[in-house]
Amino acid sequence: MHSVDFIYYLGMAGTVAFAATAVLAVIPKGIDLFGACVMGIITAIGGGTMRDVILNEPVFWANDLNYIWVALITSVITFYANRLVAQKYVYRLMLYLDAIGVSMFVIQGADKCIDLKFAMPVGPVFLGLLTAIGGGLIRDVLAGSPTLLMKKELYAVPLTLGVVLYLVLFTFFPDQQVGIAFGCVTLAFLIRASAIYWDLQVPDWMRLKEPA
Amino acid sequence: MHSVDFIYYLGMAGTVAFAATAVLAVIPKGIDLFGACVMGIITAIGGGTMRDVILNEPVFWANDLNYIWVALITSVITFYANRLVAQKYVYRLMLYLDAIGVSMFVIQGADKCIDLKFAMPVGPVFLGLLTAIGGGLIRDVLAGSPTLLMKKELYAVPLTLGVVLYLVLFTFFPDQQVGIAFGCVTLAFLIRASAIYWDLQVPDWMRLKEPA
Amino acid sequence: MHSVDFIYYLGMAGTVAFAATAVLAVIPKGIDLFGACVMGIITAIGGGTMRDVILNEPVFWANDLNYIWVALITSVITFYANRLVAQKYVYRLMLYLDAIGVSMFVIQGADKCIDLKFAMPVGPVFLGLLTAIGGGLIRDVLAGSPTLLMKKELYAVPLTLGVVLYLVLFTFFPDQQVGIAFGCVTLAFLIRASAIYWDLQVPDWMRLKEPA
Repeated sequence: MHSVDFIYYLGMAGTVAFAATAVLAVIPKGIDLFGACVMGIITAIGGGTMRDVILNEPVFWANDLNYIWVALITSVITFYANRLVAQKYVYRLMLYLDAIGVSMFVIQGADKCIDLKFAMPVGPVFLGLLTAIGGGLIRDVLAGSPTLLMKKELYAVPLTLGVVLYLVLFTFFPDQQVGIAFGCVTLAFLIRASAIYWDLQVPDWMRLKEPA
Repeated sequence: MHSVDFIYYLGMAGTVAFAATAVLAVIPKGIDLFGACVMGIITAIGGGTMRDVILNEPVFWANDLNYIWVALITSVITFYANRLVAQKYVYRLMLYLDAIGVSMFVIQGADKCIDLKFAMPVGPVFLGLLTAIGGGLIRDVLAGSPTLLMKKELYAVPLTLGVVLYLVLFTFFPDQQVGIAFGCVTLAFLIRASAIYWDLQVPDWMRLKEPA
Repeated sequence: MHSVDFIYYLGMAGTVAFAATAVLAVIPKGIDLFGACVMGIITAIGGGTMRDVILNEPVFWANDLNYIWVALITSVITFYANRLVAQKYVYRLMLYLDAIGVSMFVIQGADKCIDLKFAMPVGPVFLGLLTAIGGGLIRDVLAGSPTLLMKKELYAVPLTLGVVLYLVLFTFFPDQQVGIAFGCVTLAFLIRASAIYWDLQVPDWMRLKEPA
């Protein structure tokens, strides 16, 4: 799948959302401007960086510094305009942009593995998820917050569904990659967006009622 | 040391134990199925992945996805059968399998460095330990639990002993690598198993009575 | 900038300070000798290791094990002589050595990127900072302590100032690299040392009075 301008700008919108939500998440902990920028940038590029390191490829932002600039500028603006960005409607917009971001990055991350034929078919699923949620995991660990792995929000499951479906469909219809990618991004986004809108949680069968 | 079938299956037994004990460790924190699988897989392959990244080698599981499949299936089973796996006798079995796992992986990790003549003789000790305990460290950090570095359990010391002895003996008797490896794995395992059986802690001289 | 003996020994002094302050920071949490050594070594080499992994270069300590030996020996001594090292005057000496260390490592880390023309000019700033503070971040995460990103101490800001200025000046005067490097290390150190001496905090305009 060759990235076209539209996809590129969607990716940047996701970067904005990653940085903005990251800064908003750490501001209540009393972070300063430096910390906010580090958190914003690491959340935005951390997952893709870990993917590229595991793939033994040059990190993606080395060839396109826009990712870092956009994350940095978003972090500074969010830091000082935090009251504005934390407004209910602006914040919900950020959540939906974040949903676009993770839905795209999970497929993009898988795509990069497919191009390299890396550990098919498990590698693309695994590194796709790492691309999408890895930055957020680092952010929570550095901020001393519970990671999303410990939360009941329906966040990673739609991504997993999307990327697994992508691999299954791609295996059977390898010449339809672009269409399949578009469909799976849309599917992951729609489920995640529904989770934001209706406040959905992980379904019961994926949870333990009384853990041992 | 060329891996033979027996060693391979021992490694898989260690992988089962890593994933199972990881899932049991995070269940009381209210994790869901997705989180449990991520924790199980990361614990099982995280240490070796960091080793390979530092060595600038392809990650080991890229060429043998069994590691990920075994960790994934173990995680799912442990999640749903947690009451069974948490049974005293099953759990102790897991602890002994974990002891086999770490004892083998610390020497295997060192071995991979020796093959590459990487930073001899300190590199093999360092990356052997990273291979063995790195996955558990990531798991604890992601779960917000105290890492084993902060605990008094006799866990990493037997491994250190085994891998240091391995490097010393290998330096003097390089043509006896297989026998030495086998002996050091056994030694590390026996001490760690004793620690499980008799609930041994780190010896007094390695601790501070009244820290400053 | 070719490293000369003086710079090399300053780097080793920084390594001593990194390991010693790391061990002192984790002793109150009841760590044992093994954990103390791991913390000391990881703090000393963790940042540079992450930089080299991202740069896809061999890790720096693979070619010079002195970094690990010095960190290990410092950790053991600090562990057993913790009352001595925690003495007010010795501890302040360590803080100043740590200031030398981070001031040098931020520029050295940037330098390595410049030599490789990696992601100019943002890459050197980013990886310079990672080199300087990355090890401390891993230490705090492994110890369950708040990371420096969440503290009000004036620690990372002087380093950022130094490395940004370094990149700006280097861009305009590329043939004066050694002099500029020396000046920027000195500047970063002087501000950080002032922060230690007068207990300076992050300036008000970089903080939020009432976070949302």
